[in-house]
Amino acid sequence: MAKSRKKSTRGGAQFFEDSTKPVELSPQDERTLGKVYNLASKITTLVDQDSEPVLAIPARSLSNVSFNEKKRVLQMGAKTTNRELFNLSQAKSFMQTALVAAGAKRLVEMGKTTSIRGLYYMLKHDVKGTKEPTFHDQGECDPVIEDCEVLLEALREELHLFADKRGDMVGNITIVDSGDEIDCSRMGSGGYAIPSIVEPSVIQFKKCSADFVLHVEKNTVWQRFNEDKFWKKHNCILTHGNGQPPRGVRRLLNRLHTELKLPIFCLLDNDPWGYYIYSVVKQGSINLAYESERMATPDAKFIGVRSRDFERCGLSEGVKISLSDVDRKRAKQIADYPWFVHKKEWQREIDTMLRNGFKLEVEALVSRSISYMTEEYVPRLLKEGDFLD
Amino acid sequence: MAKSRKKSTRGGAQFFEDSTKPVELSPQDERTLGKVYNLASKITTLVDQDSEPVLAIPARSLSNVSFNEKKRVLQMGAKTTNRELFNLSQAKSFMQTALVAAGAKRLVEMGKTTSIRGLYYMLKHDVKGTKEPTFHDQGECDPVIEDCEVLLEALREELHLFADKRGDMVGNITIVDSGDEIDCSRMGSGGYAIPSIVEPSVIQFKKCSADFVLHVEKNTVWQRFNEDKFWKKHNCILTHGNGQPPRGVRRLLNRLHTELKLPIFCLLDNDPWGYYIYSVVKQGSINLAYESERMATPDAKFIGVRSRDFERCGLSEGVKISLSDVDRKRAKQIADYPWFVHKKEWQREIDTMLRNGFKLEVEALVSRSISYMTEEYVPRLLKEGDFLD
Repeated sequence: MAKSRKKSTRGGAQFFEDSTKPVELSPQDERTLGKVYNLASKITTLVDQDSEPVLAIPARSLSNVSFNEKKRVLQMGAKTTNRELFNLSQAKSFMQTALVAAGAKRLVEMGKTTSIRGLYYMLKHDVKGTKEPTFHDQGECDPVIEDCEVLLEALREELHLFADKRGDMVGNITIVDSGDEIDCSRMGSGGYAIPSIVEPSVIQFKKCSADFVLHVEKNTVWQRFNEDKFWKKHNCILTHGNGQPPRGVRRLLNRLHTELKLPIFCLLDNDPWGYYIYSVVKQGSINLAYESERMATPDAKFIGVRSRDFERCGLSEGVKISLSDVDRKRAKQIADYPWFVHKKEWQREIDTMLRNGFKLEVEALVSRSISYMTEEYVPRLLKEGDFLD
Repeated sequence: MAKSRKKSTRGGAQFFEDSTKPVELSPQDERTLGKVYNLASKITTLVDQDSEPVLAIPARSLSNVSFNEKKRVLQMGAKTTNRELFNLSQAKSFMQTALVAAGAKRLVEMGKTTSIRGLYYMLKHDVKGTKEPTFHDQGECDPVIEDCEVLLEALREELHLFADKRGDMVGNITIVDSGDEIDCSRMGSGGYAIPSIVEPSVIQFKKCSADFVLHVEKNTVWQRFNEDKFWKKHNCILTHGNGQPPRGVRRLLNRLHTELKLPIFCLLDNDPWGYYIYSVVKQGSINLAYESERMATPDAKFIGVRSRDFERCGLSEGVKISLSDVDRKRAKQIADYPWFVHKKEWQREIDTMLRNGFKLEVEALVSRSISYMTEEYVPRLLKEGDFLD
């Protein structure tokens, strides 16, 4: 096995014009590479047997996604779609799939990571002897990357691909990131920028005295909580994902919960987008159901803002934002999600918003006073255990 | 003076339903507060004299902006527009201006900061005895904030208002942020998240051995440079602003250059957007010309990607992205900017792009090899001093 790998590595080095030498691999990288080799060997076996090369790609369609009530995450079913080399309509995507797998192999071997944009550029070239590009544009490459993730049963991060990074962290935790020890209670007003790959090979938890994680939607709200040193007073970790949290932030929340047993509380807007963000953090994304078990945190709680808050918190009239038709439609769709449909409290919450006819942003709490959210709103809900599940 | 201030503070505390006590002020905050008091006293003086209350707002129109060839930054002219209280069409904006100034005063006194969204919510209410809101929406509030900045000659940050934060930093510099010492050479793969307010009252430079700053456009490119420890090999600081750098990042680059005398090199896409980002970093934004002297870095250099690079770097055909009509139009506008129009090299650069008919992203360099940009491209240009000014 070791021998044949060495051979293939040389092949890879010739295929990509890259002289970087292979590095020593981590156990995780060894596993990923093993998966790529298995895939390749399945194809060569077929060829050796004079059979037509074919890949069975797990179907990423909605019909192949279901909610696992026990694990409380989205899961992919067993449906697959064949991708054949000797089929005019599938030959190109067969080639693209092999190319992405080869690219991932190369990245892992080099010990380098790249963005999906970088991989696209790395793989894009005219097929030898033709004017036909391997990929016309990024849009042709992205779904093939997702195909490879499900085909190889490897998270994108394990294929050494990273997504955009955004989102920051402060609080009572010390981590080690790529060998650097980082005390997140000494990160000033800026904070520690959460990287896009937070797998245990990159990030280790060194010391944590925090009791929970408060995840807020927006960086501006995060700045308010950090300035008021909320995490110090309430012994917690404070994160944000600048809107819908990117993969790195979701995976980090998952790890903080599963490995350190920290409860995760989400402070999001009282609107369909806020509900959706909660749903993605909690249950995973429908598009990427195959990664939910490691990216989602089914125990996450929704700590507000709630539809009842306009009256309950005595907010001023001006903070109401009328619901649009799109908002109403989205709210109804979300109410029908399998993980919300049987929950009375969520049905009531969404129903109240629809009857209110308006939505509320977290910043609306500023109309009470600048630090109302950090000094009264969240502390009261935490104390009373008053959140949605 | 001290006495009259105290009085007004109480008034403020009544006006805003906020019980937070005033804090001790920094010299900077004292100055800002002094400016607000001067403004208020101008108005009350007019009232005492039985004159009509009027504010002379410096005009923020393009016609009042000029390029100062000597300082090499955009500057506002002396034109002002009157805003009168006893004028039906101006009374509301007079009230809004006073309201924003009062809000800033309140924030400074409390030692708190907020987003412009937060300020909007803080100030929005129905005018007493009417159903008329002080602001209909955020869009009505934002220009008034800018009016107050020019009127008070205070950066937004000095009014305790912050913008979105994005952008990270790593490298051979140790800073102090809100009392926390942060060694940016020990920040792992994630980095130090640059806050939106980086004024000397918040961020101090403690120790810096770096020779220069490399500012890259995108976080994905920044990740590549950080992973390859470019800043360690080349003794520099590495920043990004996730696209057009937000105010905090631009102000930080300005401070790194003016206070630490570090050259700033910008690695941006070879497209009109990349040119524009360079222009904003270097000369300031046309909309916000009044802050250019503290936000812009006229000595910043453009280190690529260049229109010549497709051939020069031997990139593969697939990396070309055709120019759109909008691209062509924007490129011509940028070529006519006063700080580009007399520079032969910039005229040639933009002209070459137009003749090429395509643009190139920094990531296109990946088509050579994954670390071509960090190991060959940028080091060669730095060594040869080959950049645009």
